[in-house]
Amino acid sequence: MTTAPVWSVDPRTGKRRERAAAEADTHEVARVVTAAHAARDALADRAARALLLRTAADVLDASHARIVEAADAETALGPTRLSGELARTTAQLRAFADVVDEGAFLDIRINHPDPGRTPPWPDLRRYKIPLGVVAVYAAGNFPLALSVAGADTASALAAGCPVVVKAHPGHPATAELCAALLREAARRAGLPEEITAVVHGFGAGVALIGHPRVAAAGFTGSVRGGRALFDAAAARPEPIPFHGELGSLNPVVITEAAAAERAESLGAGLAGSMTLGAGQFCTKPGLVLAPVGAAGDRLVAALAAAVGATEPGVMLDQRLRDAFVAGVRARAALPSVGTPVTPGPGDAHTVGAGFLTVPASLLAEEGPHDLLVEECFGPVTVVARYGSDDEAEAVLARLGGNLTATLHLSAEEAGGRGRSAGLLARLTPLAGRIVVDGWPTGLAVAPAQHHGGPYPATTSTATSVGTTAIERWLRPVTYQSTPDPLLPPELRELNPLGLPRTVVRP
Amino acid sequence: MTTAPVWSVDPRTGKRRERAAAEADTHEVARVVTAAHAARDALADRAARALLLRTAADVLDASHARIVEAADAETALGPTRLSGELARTTAQLRAFADVVDEGAFLDIRINHPDPGRTPPWPDLRRYKIPLGVVAVYAAGNFPLALSVAGADTASALAAGCPVVVKAHPGHPATAELCAALLREAARRAGLPEEITAVVHGFGAGVALIGHPRVAAAGFTGSVRGGRALFDAAAARPEPIPFHGELGSLNPVVITEAAAAERAESLGAGLAGSMTLGAGQFCTKPGLVLAPVGAAGDRLVAALAAAVGATEPGVMLDQRLRDAFVAGVRARAALPSVGTPVTPGPGDAHTVGAGFLTVPASLLAEEGPHDLLVEECFGPVTVVARYGSDDEAEAVLARLGGNLTATLHLSAEEAGGRGRSAGLLARLTPLAGRIVVDGWPTGLAVAPAQHHGGPYPATTSTATSVGTTAIERWLRPVTYQSTPDPLLPPELRELNPLGLPRTVVRP
Repeated sequence: MTTAPVWSVDPRTGKRRERAAAEADTHEVARVVTAAHAARDALADRAARALLLRTAADVLDASHARIVEAADAETALGPTRLSGELARTTAQLRAFADVVDEGAFLDIRINHPDPGRTPPWPDLRRYKIPLGVVAVYAAGNFPLALSVAGADTASALAAGCPVVVKAHPGHPATAELCAALLREAARRAGLPEEITAVVHGFGAGVALIGHPRVAAAGFTGSVRGGRALFDAAAARPEPIPFHGELGSLNPVVITEAAAAERAESLGAGLAGSMTLGAGQFCTKPGLVLAPVGAAGDRLVAALAAAVGATEPGVMLDQRLRDAFVAGVRARAALPSVGTPVTPGPGDAHTVGAGFLTVPASLLAEEGPHDLLVEECFGPVTVVARYGSDDEAEAVLARLGGNLTATLHLSAEEAGGRGRSAGLLARLTPLAGRIVVDGWPTGLAVAPAQHHGGPYPATTSTATSVGTTAIERWLRPVTYQSTPDPLLPPELRELNPLGLPRTVVRP
Repeated sequence: MTTAPVWSVDPRTGKRRERAAAEADTHEVARVVTAAHAARDALADRAARALLLRTAADVLDASHARIVEAADAETALGPTRLSGELARTTAQLRAFADVVDEGAFLDIRINHPDPGRTPPWPDLRRYKIPLGVVAVYAAGNFPLALSVAGADTASALAAGCPVVVKAHPGHPATAELCAALLREAARRAGLPEEITAVVHGFGAGVALIGHPRVAAAGFTGSVRGGRALFDAAAARPEPIPFHGELGSLNPVVITEAAAAERAESLGAGLAGSMTLGAGQFCTKPGLVLAPVGAAGDRLVAALAAAVGATEPGVMLDQRLRDAFVAGVRARAALPSVGTPVTPGPGDAHTVGAGFLTVPASLLAEEGPHDLLVEECFGPVTVVARYGSDDEAEAVLARLGGNLTATLHLSAEEAGGRGRSAGLLARLTPLAGRIVVDGWPTGLAVAPAQHHGGPYPATTSTATSVGTTAIERWLRPVTYQSTPDPLLPPELRELNPLGLPRTVVRP
């Protein structure tokens, strides 16, 4: 049996750096999933899980320089960004340890018997238990925070689920390094190494979603890849939850009054958000509704000045770079599309940021310009100029689901004047996070965070970032009329673990 | 255009009673879904929803006699059961009104800005909003509590979602009556009638799951029908959540000590649970692991006495009756299967209750006896006699997902002695509700209830009965850095609605 090598590639040169791993065949996938499943009981204890998560954070922090170097070499995201991403990753692991300690995620509900109810209530005690082995598909654009030791893994381990990660082909060496560090953390925490594993290769990803012992999956990536895996998860003899974060246009609406008030800072802010990380964020603002007229013209001029001054950047890999170049070319070729700063190829391995303009009326109805309301991964955005509120709303009405929707208002509108509340209500059905007077890039790991939205933003109603992401990997179970000594300690009458519980007594 | 008539049929005679409705074609389905979607804003106000639910309960209660008569005429479930089911239905509507008033389902989380976090937190405020129009597929076996005004409808309206119900062909007249009463309740509550609608016909059910304005679906029924609809929901251009409750064997384990202690009452209790409502409950115990030996023999004798004394019953319709007769015949014909009381046809329209016995060892491995661990809808159960703990556990290891799993223990075991805790841990992965020293039929509508379980029990991790069923029809949305006057009142700083909220301050 031969297995194909997996190469780490330098996106700055397109050259192979090293042989980082080997592709896993179906047999190998089955082996690691089975081992993860067999090791699941080691995660039953919450204290052990919290210790594991904190130890993993410590181990990753201790290897900070090595991880940043490895990730930069194969993603070109740069040490500053990757340093921040690693800090977010370890903060995230510790945040989930706190979630495990607190125990509110168990959602404990206790109903004492009540013969007066219709129908009568027996003693009922409900909490949530882990689903089983979780398959995690690592994101290309977040080699740390959304990959091997990232949000899906942290939340799944916090829930008590073993994890098998399908590494992203863009950063296999970083994946192997993080996998080794997770195994080290498991050893140090006194847990079996098999509770996490990493596999490589397209075929391994397909085998993983179909394995009977895989109980749920998390994914961050393209609509095409995510939908294929979603379909495979749904087509199994026993379908499993598939939490995929697939794609988002992230519309921005700038009111006439906001543009009049601060066109220059809006233009500069937009430039910063859309070019951040070479435009490779799932929250990159991809469509901006800006007013026609003088204020809007000033905004476009400020945007052009800032974007024009941006250095060319290296994208995550050559395939993405080529897709970006082709994507912007096709968009720029559409009639009535302007290119104040033309996005496109830089040298052989870089791309230059730019943006397109178009009359919003052309996006209000089905036609060739629909291409402009499809996500284009990379440093480009589309500024659609609207002449009336109706025109702006007609464009919004045609959009699919998004991770974010953003609204920029004047100070007076932010105080509640004019149609600002109406606009907010119009944006809410479009997205899972509504940003006012800010930019959608940048994502806090917080209990009130929601990183998800109507399809294709996500394939479920859950979030993939923030502490409620743990909810994806649990299912409720109710114990009826169960003698106290037999109940899990979480549900016993005297609450020996001191957990938060909702109790109803007759 | 002609539309096929929908007949109400008397299952006691097999004769058509009346033309109850007409099948809805695709056009009609689109019309009612579009009207429901257009009326959705009327449900935005929580007070209006609570009033609607309570008014619906009052209106249904006021028509108690008419509803019970209509339902009995086309289901033969009998006035006693249907009277109880209607009481449960209206209690359920009122319970969801209380849930709406309380507001905990909104799951409000507020994080004040905290620049000290990694990465920094902006002001984040998250709550849950309704998904949109919900399609409800009514259950054949619960013409009231799980049909037009049943649990799916009550929970969806409580969440703020309009509802379009696909009526069950077994009780179209009851569906029409309940639909008219729901419209009356809407009028009385000052809401548009279009927030609920009922359609009839197989084609209407297919059109409904595919309509772009349908945002989620609830279903109670067979594995075959539910899986087809689940597949259709997943295959849409924009997939939607499909919460289906499909089928369950509901295994029961009786320990040697429990049988020794109270074989007679266990036999009688089992007979009552498995013949209740002619065995047409989704929670009917369909497989009972009972020990070999004298105690188990006494249990089987007691079961035989009680089941043998049961009057023949009328099933919900002729198709189910024929499926039952064929199903028990195929099972009884398997080698080594005993029939202490033979289940099967009574007169032309009735069936007699019975049960089968089999050595548990024959169920421990794949083979023709697998038929015995498939659900057989109707008054039959399978008693598998085990000779050792290993044998019993080998059978449990082969079972799929279930709504319930039940354990009968001796008094000493219930105190925590012996392997009782281990057995409970063995049953937990199999089901969503674990019952100790009771029977799985009978279902409290309570916050701690969970009516769901691993596939095929349900197609999601949610419950279809109990107040947390509301969670199925909501999605989170987060407002970032949004000025207080523009926030929904639920999320404003001073909490003007007095809602329960989880607030994190730096």
